[in-house]
Amino acid sequence: MKALVYDEKLKLVDNYPKPVLSDEEVLIRTVMVGICNTDFEITKGYMGYKGVLGHEFVGIVVEVGKNANKDIVGKRVVGEINCACEECSWCHNGLQRHCPNRSTLGIYKKDGCFSEYFTLPYKNVFVISDNIDDITATFTEPLAAAYEILEQVHIKPDSKVALLGDGKLGLCISLVFKALNIDFVHIGKHENKLKISKDLGVKTKLLSELTEKDRKAFDIVIEATGSTGGFETSVSLVKPRGVLVLKSTITAKEGLNLASIVVDEINIVGSRCGKFAPILRLLEDGKIDVKPLVEKVYNIEDFIEAFDNNSKKDTLKVLVKF
Amino acid sequence: MKALVYDEKLKLVDNYPKPVLSDEEVLIRTVMVGICNTDFEITKGYMGYKGVLGHEFVGIVVEVGKNANKDIVGKRVVGEINCACEECSWCHNGLQRHCPNRSTLGIYKKDGCFSEYFTLPYKNVFVISDNIDDITATFTEPLAAAYEILEQVHIKPDSKVALLGDGKLGLCISLVFKALNIDFVHIGKHENKLKISKDLGVKTKLLSELTEKDRKAFDIVIEATGSTGGFETSVSLVKPRGVLVLKSTITAKEGLNLASIVVDEINIVGSRCGKFAPILRLLEDGKIDVKPLVEKVYNIEDFIEAFDNNSKKDTLKVLVKF
Repeated sequence: MKALVYDEKLKLVDNYPKPVLSDEEVLIRTVMVGICNTDFEITKGYMGYKGVLGHEFVGIVVEVGKNANKDIVGKRVVGEINCACEECSWCHNGLQRHCPNRSTLGIYKKDGCFSEYFTLPYKNVFVISDNIDDITATFTEPLAAAYEILEQVHIKPDSKVALLGDGKLGLCISLVFKALNIDFVHIGKHENKLKISKDLGVKTKLLSELTEKDRKAFDIVIEATGSTGGFETSVSLVKPRGVLVLKSTITAKEGLNLASIVVDEINIVGSRCGKFAPILRLLEDGKIDVKPLVEKVYNIEDFIEAFDNNSKKDTLKVLVKF
Repeated sequence: MKALVYDEKLKLVDNYPKPVLSDEEVLIRTVMVGICNTDFEITKGYMGYKGVLGHEFVGIVVEVGKNANKDIVGKRVVGEINCACEECSWCHNGLQRHCPNRSTLGIYKKDGCFSEYFTLPYKNVFVISDNIDDITATFTEPLAAAYEILEQVHIKPDSKVALLGDGKLGLCISLVFKALNIDFVHIGKHENKLKISKDLGVKTKLLSELTEKDRKAFDIVIEATGSTGGFETSVSLVKPRGVLVLKSTITAKEGLNLASIVVDEINIVGSRCGKFAPILRLLEDGKIDVKPLVEKVYNIEDFIEAFDNNSKKDTLKVLVKF
């Protein structure tokens, strides 16, 4: 089968072996996938991963393992990407996303969805309603990651909230926050990207427009820039005793001063993947329009070109149709 | 009056002007002071501070401003070090320690206590009971900073807790946690310092004794090493969704990888100064014996020598008697 594989270099291959289905899994025929910055980071060495890339998808179940419910065959699905053991205390506490024995689709110890077929545990898979189109469905994973913030942090009706970063991650968070009618300011570097938020009625501000008045002015700041500079700006915006949600995996190449986190007693909350059920409820109700976030939809033959396009700075979501 | 002053270099001067007392303040004659690592950091440029150093003390009130209660004259006192405006929303919410208009004794915009006389607002000062001796009283400020952790983080009866760092800060935290009979492991590099905790019945472990089993094993980790390496070890010890209390003001000179904070959704809580009333209750009840933490008590004439001794690695608390 066709697959986009990373093994020291990135290759689109024709003859990758079709995955073997285990008893607890379902075999999914890929319909559409999304490229995430994590995929790009993996090709730069992140997680030391080798194999089929990809973890954002919509597909159709074509076969099930003997312990999975057969009724799902033929259904259009999305799926959570962490494959947990279901036996440890983390799993028993509903935190499968933190299971120490987990593999993660296309990121850690499990081939991803950038191939014609792939597998996921039956438990991870969600049948989606017909009124969620393929493009919207492919956004389920990044939108769930955005919604995860609300699992972790209590945003009160009068909280002063800033969202920093207008890349794909920041825009996904903006869409979710707007769907919940949270009052926030979206801060970024790119007028054209912030316009997506602005068109939804979100307050926006260019980074260059921040003034002394914005320093220590926010109860909650969401860091979604992926850069050390963005992290430092976020710290400067949050009030003493406020909360900084760290959404992007940052590696500071230069030094990083953590002193003001102590002096201002800031609370930093790391935030990663989210549950699918809550975000699917919003998508089913038509509360989120992802279309403005789509850069381009490619065909599978042009996957390398799609990947290169995604790697460019300022690219919005690149999708690939199978 | 005699004063230890930092102004590009450190000087013990004889003729520093006696402070002018404002209406809301009390004038304190210094009895004993403690040297803190922050004092040393200031001489390396921290906070850009110039003036009389020092913020750990016990003293006697000798004069009061016209809006302060005269009954306090002649009383032995300790005092909170953040001098707040009492007019902003932070002050109205009981968070004077975060007042944006504050000065801080010997650290920011206010001469410190390393002099024969100094002033503090009447509101900051606590009369102490006779059964708290001068040495113990001088530890009030660092012990209150240790107790602050309990203001911010809920340590449950069955929480798995690790305290990293066996310097003065780590040992103060150990004394407070032990007084509260919290179950924790004190981890450090120095057998002789950990012995202070061990002698109290605290579980201790050398850094070199940490094994793979300790990775991601603690619900709550207190970082009190002051080093980038200590921060990274702390991150590795905390469970996914666990809490890392950042007690020391770290500046990473090299790079710092924050990715695992996001991946494991760790909650970092910066923690600084604490309230005096709760810790004075413990000291009054004789629940904390600070004596094992005392390196040496100097006389004021030898202040520079005392300061140099404090600057050495591995020195415990250096005190100066006036």
